[in-house]
Amino acid sequence: MIIIKVGGGEKTNWDGIANDLVNLSQLEKIVLVHGASVRRDEVAQKLGAPTKTVVSPSGISSVYTDNKAIEVFLMVYAGLTNKQIVAKLQKYGLNAIGLSGVDGKLWQAKRKNDLLVAENGKVKLIKDNLTGRVERINTDLINLLVENNYIPVLCPPAISFENEIVNTDNDLATAQMAESLGVKEIVVLFEAPGMLENFPDEKSVINNISKKDLELYMEQAKGRMKKKILGAKKAFEMGVTKIYWGDSRIEHPVLSAMEGKGTVID
Amino acid sequence: MIIIKVGGGEKTNWDGIANDLVNLSQLEKIVLVHGASVRRDEVAQKLGAPTKTVVSPSGISSVYTDNKAIEVFLMVYAGLTNKQIVAKLQKYGLNAIGLSGVDGKLWQAKRKNDLLVAENGKVKLIKDNLTGRVERINTDLINLLVENNYIPVLCPPAISFENEIVNTDNDLATAQMAESLGVKEIVVLFEAPGMLENFPDEKSVINNISKKDLELYMEQAKGRMKKKILGAKKAFEMGVTKIYWGDSRIEHPVLSAMEGKGTVID
Repeated sequence: MIIIKVGGGEKTNWDGIANDLVNLSQLEKIVLVHGASVRRDEVAQKLGAPTKTVVSPSGISSVYTDNKAIEVFLMVYAGLTNKQIVAKLQKYGLNAIGLSGVDGKLWQAKRKNDLLVAENGKVKLIKDNLTGRVERINTDLINLLVENNYIPVLCPPAISFENEIVNTDNDLATAQMAESLGVKEIVVLFEAPGMLENFPDEKSVINNISKKDLELYMEQAKGRMKKKILGAKKAFEMGVTKIYWGDSRIEHPVLSAMEGKGTVID
Repeated sequence: MIIIKVGGGEKTNWDGIANDLVNLSQLEKIVLVHGASVRRDEVAQKLGAPTKTVVSPSGISSVYTDNKAIEVFLMVYAGLTNKQIVAKLQKYGLNAIGLSGVDGKLWQAKRKNDLLVAENGKVKLIKDNLTGRVERINTDLINLLVENNYIPVLCPPAISFENEIVNTDNDLATAQMAESLGVKEIVVLFEAPGMLENFPDEKSVINNISKKDLELYMEQAKGRMKKKILGAKKAFEMGVTKIYWGDSRIEHPVLSAMEGKGTVID
């Protein structure tokens, strides 16, 4: 089994991904995880509840999630984007089925109410944040589906142990899935060619990173890449042996990444 | 197996339904189908793409569905409402899993591009309407889930035979599911106590209607009740032997309907 995680940008070549999966699915069971952050922000804006991003004291940015934000999350991730991806894959003959982390308690999360935030040089505590860290995976459900030749297409939110719908970090959820399912290889696609030596020079892709050196790249990583590195570190701690970072915008996003044309971490 | 179809009003007592299902699920496999029309209209309004309702020459109202409308549909049915219902059922210990008709091609529909519409006394043809009639059910997927003790929570949209996401009539889809799954009894809940002799007098509930008399009620049925009657007629044509219409707002929506406190059609 292989897990493919696709970021939430709008330039992703979904036809290319679907095409790659037609080939890959002959060889491997596939679980797909996707984001939808760009569209989420657009819809949130239109609905008069713009996404609020906060930054932790260590510089990791995340979304402050109140009830309104969870509603937008459900609409754009579990509704709009998830089903459009499913329909796209079906167009290529792939047997896709879309689920959020809530369905069948696929992703159970430990709620983290309190969020430590750095604001104007001060550290603040935000309460009642509807987020959580995925700690338990319904592997029976995933196995049931893949054994019956479905391709699960998964997205946040997750469900807390107290049955609240909570936002969760997609990269960490992916790492947790890898551990629970015994998955050794993860493909992570985003709108960049890989880890860049000289951001934003897209020609400066680093083709290989040793997993023990990942920490060293935290400093030079920009924005969301910090989260990718954290997710990768977590995935290696959880038994993954190889992670492929690749460009979601190119002709063969998945196959190119697996051929090492992005950044391979092992 | 029993199919329970819940309308898309905002006054539905979901705690009551969940509570009833805890009891009922000991006795029967359950498939739940839900609407979300009221919220859909609210969100569509906010997003600047208000729902357009059209009326057929025979007086049946339906939604004109363009691309924007499908997007809102996905957001509010498959995203927001479906997952909130799933989480609510899970709170009561029910093993709920939410799917749209798109997922695993659960509801395959024949696209009906052309819509005949009565407008200002004239009949007009609307093209490019993204709707369809559900004709094929992925019964393997439903059986796989219920045999593994999940309660499928289903909603439109459906997927056309050409892999387009299409709006579909929920009552007709329910009838098609009943036939394909060999289901004999359907519970249909909405925000009225049943079929009313003197609309809107809620005390004038007709407790029993013979299925062969259903046609006679078309005349006196108001608004959405016409669609309920058409759905019921279709369900009887498809092998259903008993339909319970009941009030979704009361303490025991499902059990009261099944005890005959609404309108029983057989």
